[in-house]
Amino acid sequence: MVNEAARSNPHAGQQIVIIGSGFAGLAVAKGLAGAQCQVTVVDKRNFHLFQPLLYQVATGALSPANIATPIRAALKKARNVTVLLGEVVDVDTVSRQVELASGEAVPYDILVLAPGVQTQYFRHPEWEQFAPGLKSIEDALTVRRHILSAFEHAEVAASPAERERDLTFVVVGGGPTGVEMAGAIAEIARYTLRGEFRRSNPAAAKILLVEGGPDILPVYTPKLRERAARDLADMGVTVRTGTMVVSIEPDGVQLAHGGQTEFVPASAVVWAAGIKAAPWTTALAGERGIETDRLGRFTVLPDLTLPGHPEIFVAGDLAHCKGETGEPLPALGSVAVQQGKYLAKVIRARIAGRTPPPAFHYVDRGIMATIGRAAAIADLRFIRLTGFIGWLSWLFVHLMLLVEFRSRVVIFFNWAWCYVTRNRYSRLITGGEHFTPSRGDS
Amino acid sequence: MVNEAARSNPHAGQQIVIIGSGFAGLAVAKGLAGAQCQVTVVDKRNFHLFQPLLYQVATGALSPANIATPIRAALKKARNVTVLLGEVVDVDTVSRQVELASGEAVPYDILVLAPGVQTQYFRHPEWEQFAPGLKSIEDALTVRRHILSAFEHAEVAASPAERERDLTFVVVGGGPTGVEMAGAIAEIARYTLRGEFRRSNPAAAKILLVEGGPDILPVYTPKLRERAARDLADMGVTVRTGTMVVSIEPDGVQLAHGGQTEFVPASAVVWAAGIKAAPWTTALAGERGIETDRLGRFTVLPDLTLPGHPEIFVAGDLAHCKGETGEPLPALGSVAVQQGKYLAKVIRARIAGRTPPPAFHYVDRGIMATIGRAAAIADLRFIRLTGFIGWLSWLFVHLMLLVEFRSRVVIFFNWAWCYVTRNRYSRLITGGEHFTPSRGDS
Repeated sequence: MVNEAARSNPHAGQQIVIIGSGFAGLAVAKGLAGAQCQVTVVDKRNFHLFQPLLYQVATGALSPANIATPIRAALKKARNVTVLLGEVVDVDTVSRQVELASGEAVPYDILVLAPGVQTQYFRHPEWEQFAPGLKSIEDALTVRRHILSAFEHAEVAASPAERERDLTFVVVGGGPTGVEMAGAIAEIARYTLRGEFRRSNPAAAKILLVEGGPDILPVYTPKLRERAARDLADMGVTVRTGTMVVSIEPDGVQLAHGGQTEFVPASAVVWAAGIKAAPWTTALAGERGIETDRLGRFTVLPDLTLPGHPEIFVAGDLAHCKGETGEPLPALGSVAVQQGKYLAKVIRARIAGRTPPPAFHYVDRGIMATIGRAAAIADLRFIRLTGFIGWLSWLFVHLMLLVEFRSRVVIFFNWAWCYVTRNRYSRLITGGEHFTPSRGDS
Repeated sequence: MVNEAARSNPHAGQQIVIIGSGFAGLAVAKGLAGAQCQVTVVDKRNFHLFQPLLYQVATGALSPANIATPIRAALKKARNVTVLLGEVVDVDTVSRQVELASGEAVPYDILVLAPGVQTQYFRHPEWEQFAPGLKSIEDALTVRRHILSAFEHAEVAASPAERERDLTFVVVGGGPTGVEMAGAIAEIARYTLRGEFRRSNPAAAKILLVEGGPDILPVYTPKLRERAARDLADMGVTVRTGTMVVSIEPDGVQLAHGGQTEFVPASAVVWAAGIKAAPWTTALAGERGIETDRLGRFTVLPDLTLPGHPEIFVAGDLAHCKGETGEPLPALGSVAVQQGKYLAKVIRARIAGRTPPPAFHYVDRGIMATIGRAAAIADLRFIRLTGFIGWLSWLFVHLMLLVEFRSRVVIFFNWAWCYVTRNRYSRLITGGEHFTPSRGDS
């Protein structure tokens, strides 16, 4: 079923289809509100997700609704924008239609591909059931269940060895996500749960942060990296660089370092170690001869179009876009937002017949990562901040990046209360009504 | 494995075991904080759930964490209270031990059975997959997913008949839960989603409230019932009394009224029509010769003990306890809370060797139910309120019943904002990353 009526109506203007409503997709849609075109946003979820704060849902500090905005609510006032909940299975670049799983075909004059990427397990998909990633709300709730259940298991453990295993947590991946997760788990163990258990001691938890490369937070400066490592150590996180994961079992992980392997009994394992393009985009690239990098991201020209397809733009994590240094821009929310706003300008110019803006230029305002409750490292280019001041700036920037004003108020209130009480208020083990002793129950 | 150390220590005091941390169980545990006894609370969930507001989670107005408190946080300061996350499989009333699924046996001198009840489908368990109940967070999130997905399906419906089916909602059960659900769905359809869809019109939704008996809200006075029915009709809810459900299919329900049957194509169906005791309690009753009513609730003496077992108390929904009129007390949160507080006094008196308080006497302060955004009916015995004033009193009472002060502040803020904006902020379709067109995907 094709919505031909729209295409054949000369007064309807151009048909713009945007796949994905993350940072990039939503920015394009908002930027095209009121323009002389019909915009259709397609997403398989009904909400825009603020991924940088997923680790806070995973550690019971925030609820999913605090970081997710219904797409329709965000785009309600844009009368020329239609939102469709649906799963894209293919893009026919010849007839210019987006094919959905329901059978509907959405025609486009201009297509914006911004579906994001997913977690990758480096040819070990079987690890996913034991070590969830952190790219979706369901991921975060699964991680939350594993972490909170681990402390509960420790309380009823039948032996000291079992208790120690229950209280050992492994976070794989030394980038910002892994660092933030490890710091948050340490905070739960040493502060949040203090006094709540009678037979076990949550503060005895061992938290391992495993990174295959020589450094955690490789994109930060050496000084900031050292500061982060110190803060983590103060919080009780053991950092293991130059260490690879060999295998993940139900009761622990096998690690390899310097030629030696070691089995670490552990209960909750979190995977924050890699991304790759979703299978449907990789299949699409194969079919249509689109050049991709080793992660499956689509190589784009400086104006974010696909080579040979000036009507198709790619933005966000899926875009392999060269930055000023010649290196591809990182998969960051700030890059995606800027690309989305740029594309809105480009598309508006194109449909109005004006000269389009020059090539996309990312304005690097810096990067930041928290380490626990009141510390962060922030490289804002013109200044570098650490400790409490770094944390305040991190709070401010993230609050401002949130889409909804109400979310900002709610999250600010939440953080203020949590800061004062050192507590977390979304510490629910959900997802099943039966408490089972094994970790395999996702 | 038996925790005998506790029982054999004469200085440890009596071992009180409480099964369940709902209104009744939590009230007993809090009432025994600091008393000369060791208390163990066993629950298969790690949080206390404020069930009266589950329908607000089911309609995207609140998040689960707003109405659920981690048990450990609530009982943290009570040093003589231990919380165990576990599933009870049996109670050995001879050796006086509670047996958990993990194999652990928890010995007791005094046992408080307060596990609550579950949804019942009147010998049609196969209906549950199509028509979830509203007794747990998972229920509420499933209902939420069905309701929000229905509106999304309508937006991409292939035909008017399909769209009409997508926009038809059926709520089974005319008690307070059913009335509140129906009113909330009507509010979503007519207010919350206004302007958010382009191809379909949410306000065209048809909401049926089906009740087998002659009246909805049978425990209210006739005048209040009429007022509720009028408010519901104003909101667009069609009430069908004297109507039974014959069957529930993936694409609708078969209803019977006055000897005639009718198939109603519908997408989301919510079951709020009956409760019964959980299977393990029914099995226990059978094994130990405990008298139960037709719902499986345990018959108790005026002091809430089981006949022949002065060391076992039953409280909350599972207790079939005769009120002043000779009728059993209803399964209400207010009854459970009062029973819990009473039991704490009884147990304290018993372990101190004092005369116990007389029989349990329920102080009936009234009942209340909301109908939509700014209307409610409240029978507070000394006064009856309806409309906006009724709604304000409903808000106040429920805020005060919440366990945590923080929850009260958060929910009050939430309700105030939602009232002003007529919006709902937890409208997420979660529970799966793939949007499928059929309703069977729980």
